[in-house]
Amino acid sequence: MAGDHGNLRINEDRLWGSLMELAEIGATAKGGVARLALTEEDKRGRDLFMRWCEEAGLQTRIDRMGNIFARRPGRNPSARAVASGSHLDSQPTGGKFDGAYGVLAALEVIRTLNDHAVETEAPVEIAAWTNEEGVRFSPAMVGAGVYGGAFTLDYALGRKDADGVTLGQALEHIGYAGPAMDPEPFGAFLEVHIEQGPVLENAGLPIGIVEGVQGIRWYDLTLTGSEVHAGPTPMDLRRDPLRDGLPILQAIYDIAYAEAPEGRATIGVCQAHPGSRNTVPGQLAMSVDLRHPEAGVLARMDGKLRALAEQGAPGLTCKLEEVWHSPPVKFDSSCVAAVTGAAERLGLQARPMTSGAGHDSVYVARVAPTAMIFIPCTGGISHNEAEEARKDHVAQGTDVLLHALLTLAG
Amino acid sequence: MAGDHGNLRINEDRLWGSLMELAEIGATAKGGVARLALTEEDKRGRDLFMRWCEEAGLQTRIDRMGNIFARRPGRNPSARAVASGSHLDSQPTGGKFDGAYGVLAALEVIRTLNDHAVETEAPVEIAAWTNEEGVRFSPAMVGAGVYGGAFTLDYALGRKDADGVTLGQALEHIGYAGPAMDPEPFGAFLEVHIEQGPVLENAGLPIGIVEGVQGIRWYDLTLTGSEVHAGPTPMDLRRDPLRDGLPILQAIYDIAYAEAPEGRATIGVCQAHPGSRNTVPGQLAMSVDLRHPEAGVLARMDGKLRALAEQGAPGLTCKLEEVWHSPPVKFDSSCVAAVTGAAERLGLQARPMTSGAGHDSVYVARVAPTAMIFIPCTGGISHNEAEEARKDHVAQGTDVLLHALLTLAG
Repeated sequence: MAGDHGNLRINEDRLWGSLMELAEIGATAKGGVARLALTEEDKRGRDLFMRWCEEAGLQTRIDRMGNIFARRPGRNPSARAVASGSHLDSQPTGGKFDGAYGVLAALEVIRTLNDHAVETEAPVEIAAWTNEEGVRFSPAMVGAGVYGGAFTLDYALGRKDADGVTLGQALEHIGYAGPAMDPEPFGAFLEVHIEQGPVLENAGLPIGIVEGVQGIRWYDLTLTGSEVHAGPTPMDLRRDPLRDGLPILQAIYDIAYAEAPEGRATIGVCQAHPGSRNTVPGQLAMSVDLRHPEAGVLARMDGKLRALAEQGAPGLTCKLEEVWHSPPVKFDSSCVAAVTGAAERLGLQARPMTSGAGHDSVYVARVAPTAMIFIPCTGGISHNEAEEARKDHVAQGTDVLLHALLTLAG
Repeated sequence: MAGDHGNLRINEDRLWGSLMELAEIGATAKGGVARLALTEEDKRGRDLFMRWCEEAGLQTRIDRMGNIFARRPGRNPSARAVASGSHLDSQPTGGKFDGAYGVLAALEVIRTLNDHAVETEAPVEIAAWTNEEGVRFSPAMVGAGVYGGAFTLDYALGRKDADGVTLGQALEHIGYAGPAMDPEPFGAFLEVHIEQGPVLENAGLPIGIVEGVQGIRWYDLTLTGSEVHAGPTPMDLRRDPLRDGLPILQAIYDIAYAEAPEGRATIGVCQAHPGSRNTVPGQLAMSVDLRHPEAGVLARMDGKLRALAEQGAPGLTCKLEEVWHSPPVKFDSSCVAAVTGAAERLGLQARPMTSGAGHDSVYVARVAPTAMIFIPCTGGISHNEAEEARKDHVAQGTDVLLHALLTLAG
C-alpha cells in the first residue's frame, strides 16, 4: 500500500538526465526536438527507451500499432496492469517535454520501485503510444485511438504520410510492427504531461489534477458581401463582410464569455478575400473553435452560434459548417481520487482542472479508468522549440504519479 | 462657337461599333478584354486606333513614352490643342469600356466634327496614354505621369515587368517608342470614362461631372498579441489581436462615418496569423485605405487613425505604417464649367462628383486645365470581364464631351 511507502521519492537528477538524453535524438539548433512519428529519429528514440526498459528488468512487448508496453510484474499475475505513459513522437519544431515527459516519468517511477524493491499487487506498466502528434500521419493520437476502439486497425494502418507511405509500412520499416493488439485493457491508466497552457504557472501551482478533457466543436464560417472597388464605392453602398460582420465576431466571443470561466471561443483563421488594399472584401473566411468541459454547456454554445449564423447581418450571406466535434471526456473518479490523494500526501498544492488539449488519455479512457496529472510549463508555451519546464516541477509531477500508481496498484 | 452647333450629336452606332471592334483584340471567353500594356494585343489595338485616326485625316505622333496623339487642326495654328482621351491597355481580366471608351469617344467627336465640317479655333486632339493600368509595369498611369511631370522619363522607361523586360524595351519591341516628350502641354484636357462605381446608376443619372479626384492614404496596420494554443488557454489569459482589436477595426470605419458622405475607409487586407484553427492568433495584419476629396478632411482622418494606433488596445502592440499618399486633385473650374454647360444644353441630368479611382487625368491636370465626364456602368462593376455600360449612356457621355470640347476649342 502507498501508506507503507510515504517517504518514497523519485530520483530527480536521473529523470532529468534521461529527459535530456532522449532530447538529443532529433535535437534542433534552437533547443527543441524534431522526432516525427515512425521516422529514423523516432526509431532511435524508441530503441533507447526499449534499452532503458530492459535495463530496468521490464518485459517489453509491441502491439500491431507499434505501441510499446513495458511491464513490471506484480504479486498477483492475474491482476490487470496499472499503467502510465504518453508518447515519444514530437512536432516538427517541438520541445523536450511534450510526450517524452509522460513516458520517462513512468520509467522513473519503475526505476524508483526497483531501487527500493517495492512490490505491488498489480503489475505496473509503461505505455508509449504511436503517433500522438498526428503530424506525419493524421489523425492525431491514432495509436491510443486504436487501443481505445476509436479507430479500426485497418483504418489506422492505412493512413498515409505526404509521400504516400502508409503508417503500416512505416512501422514495418523501423521494425516496430507487433503481432496484434492487446486483448485486455489496463486496470487503470495515468498520464503525466506538461499543461501546455498558462493556468498552473499563472496560479503558482506545481500540480494540476486533470478531471477530464474539454469538448471541442469546430466550424467554418463564411460571410459573403460584395467585392467592389474601394475608391468609387461610398460607405452606404457597400456590403462589406468585414465591416458588417464585426458584430458577429464580437457575438462569437460573447458566447464564450457567457459561459465563463470555462467557455472558450477562438477565431484562429480570419481572412478577407480577395485581400487587395483598394478592394472592399467580398468575403470573410473564418474558423470558429468552441470549447467547454460540459457537454450540455457546449451544446448551448453550439446553439447560440447556429442562431447567430441564422440571423446573419444585413446585406451579408452567412454560411456555417460544422467541421468536427469531440465530446467532453470525464476521467475516472477513482483515478482522479488517487492523484488528489497523492498530491495531498506529498504536500503539493494542486487544483482540479480540465485539459484544453487532446491527449492519448482521451482514447485510453474509453476502455480503462484513466486520469491525468499536469505540471506547469514556462509561459504556457508548447508545440514550440522554446518549450520549457522546471526541474522541480518535473520531479514533483513524477512523485505524484508514483504515489497515485502505488494507490491504484495496491 | 458651341452655340452654332447646338443640334450636333455624335453617331451612337458608329461609336458602339468601334468599341466592339476594338474589344475583339484581346477578347476573353467571358466577354472581357485582356490587352496588357505594350503586349502584342496592345500593339494591335494601337495599330487599329492609328488606322482609324488616319482615316479621319488626323496628324498622328508618338512621344517617347509611347503616348499617341492625333490632331485635327484648328483655324489658329498657334493655339494650344484642346485634347481628350484615355488609355487602350486593360486589366488581365478587364472589360470593354475602361479606357477604350475615353479614347474612342474622343475619336467619335472628331469623326462627328468631320461629318459636319465643323471648324474649331484651337486644334482638337486625341490622347491615348501608355500603361494606365499599371499591371504589366508598375506604377499605374505612367505614360500620363511622365507627361504631367510626376515621374522622370528615365524612371518610367526603366520600369520592369515580371520577366525583367523594361518598359523602354517593350515600347521599342512593338514599335511605339517615339523620339521625345511633347514640349508644350494641351490648352485643356477632358477625359470621359465609365464611373467604375455605383453612384450614378444608383441615382438614376446618365452623367457625372467630375470635379476632382479623392485624396488617398494607404497604411499597413499590424496588431500583435500572443500566439497560444486555443485549447489550454482561458479567455482571460489571452492577448488575441483579433478579439481585442475589434474596437480598433470599428473605430477605423467610424473615421469615415464621421466625414460622411464623402469619407471612405476600407480594410481590404485582413489576415490572422498563423491562421490555424486551434491557435489563438498572434498577429492580425491589415491594410487601411482612407479617402476624401478635401485635403484638410483627409488630414483629419489621418490624424484620427494615428491617434487610434497610438492608443492601441490593452495587451496588444499596434504598428501603423504609411504606405502611400495621393493628395486630392481639384480639376480646372473652366473645364468643369464647360462640361456642366454641355450637359445642361443637352438636357441630360447630371451631378457633380469626385472620382474615387485614379485616372490619366490626375497627372495631366498637373500641366493642363482638366476635367472628366463619367457615365454609369452596370452594377458599378469594373476591372472585371462582366463590365458593361448602356449604349445610350455611352452616346450621351460622348455628346457631352463633344459640346464641352467645342466650348473649350472655340
